[in-house]
Amino acid sequence: MGVVSAFAALDELRVRGARLTKPLAIVNFGDEEGARFGLACVGSRLTAGQLTIEAAHRLRDGDGVTLPQAMEAAGYDPSAIGPDPERLARIGAFVELHVEQGRALDLTGDPVGIASAIWPHGRWRFDFRGEANHAGTTRLADRRDPMLTYAETVLAARREAELAGAVATFGKISVEPNGVNAIPSLVRGWLDSRAADQATLDTVVTGVERAAREYAERHGIDLDVVRESFTPVVEFEDALRDELGAILGGAAERPVPVLGTGAGHDAGILSASIPTAMLFVRNPTGVSHSPAEYAAEDDCLAGVAALADVLEGLACR
Amino acid sequence: MGVVSAFAALDELRVRGARLTKPLAIVNFGDEEGARFGLACVGSRLTAGQLTIEAAHRLRDGDGVTLPQAMEAAGYDPSAIGPDPERLARIGAFVELHVEQGRALDLTGDPVGIASAIWPHGRWRFDFRGEANHAGTTRLADRRDPMLTYAETVLAARREAELAGAVATFGKISVEPNGVNAIPSLVRGWLDSRAADQATLDTVVTGVERAAREYAERHGIDLDVVRESFTPVVEFEDALRDELGAILGGAAERPVPVLGTGAGHDAGILSASIPTAMLFVRNPTGVSHSPAEYAAEDDCLAGVAALADVLEGLACR
Repeated sequence: MGVVSAFAALDELRVRGARLTKPLAIVNFGDEEGARFGLACVGSRLTAGQLTIEAAHRLRDGDGVTLPQAMEAAGYDPSAIGPDPERLARIGAFVELHVEQGRALDLTGDPVGIASAIWPHGRWRFDFRGEANHAGTTRLADRRDPMLTYAETVLAARREAELAGAVATFGKISVEPNGVNAIPSLVRGWLDSRAADQATLDTVVTGVERAAREYAERHGIDLDVVRESFTPVVEFEDALRDELGAILGGAAERPVPVLGTGAGHDAGILSASIPTAMLFVRNPTGVSHSPAEYAAEDDCLAGVAALADVLEGLACR
Repeated sequence: MGVVSAFAALDELRVRGARLTKPLAIVNFGDEEGARFGLACVGSRLTAGQLTIEAAHRLRDGDGVTLPQAMEAAGYDPSAIGPDPERLARIGAFVELHVEQGRALDLTGDPVGIASAIWPHGRWRFDFRGEANHAGTTRLADRRDPMLTYAETVLAARREAELAGAVATFGKISVEPNGVNAIPSLVRGWLDSRAADQATLDTVVTGVERAAREYAERHGIDLDVVRESFTPVVEFEDALRDELGAILGGAAERPVPVLGTGAGHDAGILSASIPTAMLFVRNPTGVSHSPAEYAAEDDCLAGVAALADVLEGLACR
């Protein structure tokens, strides 16, 4: 929803004739998903000083293009990369409106909810290195095939997540040489894992890595595991969350649901620096990060109205 | 070795002052490996009429570039694509020299061998379709994750190949959307499998497909299996093979080893149309299709000398 819903809420405030006593600003952070450079929330991390300029300059996409090169190609000035503490210090509260990415809200029957926390989550890169060889002439016993170890690790991740009540996913893979008739020399798989608390997440990731190392040893595979990103549990500020509850609960017939989420957000990054809150709009299928992601129009309008209520409540006092 | 060794053998014939009574030609077929367009031996298949012009025009690489477009970009005339029966009819015998891609020859202690047969082999594309979704917020029970089914199928292929004494490899994969925080909608894996005879190969591939379908059903995954290429067993012509044995055995102290191979070759394609034979040079590690592929210089020279002997024997009669 992001920027579009923020403008819609601003329109709603104009229609209401709201008189702000504090300035309002809308921000659109770059690459919240991290799909291109592998690190989620690059824009908000940079703003909040959680990503150094040096580290940002080292980010490369799958084709080897660096973040500064990509910015330049898109018409932006890469010398602007860096933290922005002065701007950050001027923010009294940051509120992000987002479609829920699970079904928790749908189960409550409410169109809008308030975030309590974001699960701790991280990304780990598993590099399985074997020996490239001919798929037709290399005896099975002579192979060091990293695809086998990768496959066993994918299944281990599912088992560990099931046991712990967490989630673990291998959704991205890169193979060299990736030829039909070649045993791979390298299979690189990325593990995304999240859990309600840090101890559970540690249990899952440690279990997956232990299983992967056992498989690797058995097949003569070299394994490197690198944690590429990590975001500890985010508990949104109690005071601001309660204030949102009071603003929205005053109009609603019953308390607005408060719920945690497994998805990372720019609001989670900023919460380390400034008071931050999130509103969720009901997702009837729970499907997200897919063309099938959907929210009913009425629920979207309810989300915009809730954001307008919150902005009015916070900026018109 | 291919073209370079053929020119070296020609040099050797010149040095010997060999007087040919039949014309010799050297041919360099395009894309024997099929790495770019997915189909091995495109050049020899076209020449021999085993690939129709229409099918050749439909070949696309991973970026969607067609074979004619790629030829044009490389400065070749795509209208030349097609069979060449007249030229084929003028060939009395075709001999291909190749480094061995296994260790069979090395185990005999000989530097040069003669091919008996090429194992039947094929490539099958497995398309596992699930539902793209958010890796952080989708409960395990709600997932239709095709990566899990792919992983189970990779391990099933290894088991089936072990049971049958064949080889089976998943060395190439393509994932959509291939994002760290997204459950894939599509995992496409390519199976390469070969065996000493057709019945064994059928057993392996049928077994892998049956296992994949069971896993797919359990996870709510749609599975399509497409045979992208297939080459039946190639038995090189007895008469020509015996002639090579006589030519080389006359100089050697003992019979030259005759051995089968699991690797496909242009010679295997042409053998359906014309008398065809292959010579192998010893590969001390068996490593092939890898930067580590290696043959000793003395063995390469022995291969060139053997090819020169064979050419002299066949073309100077």
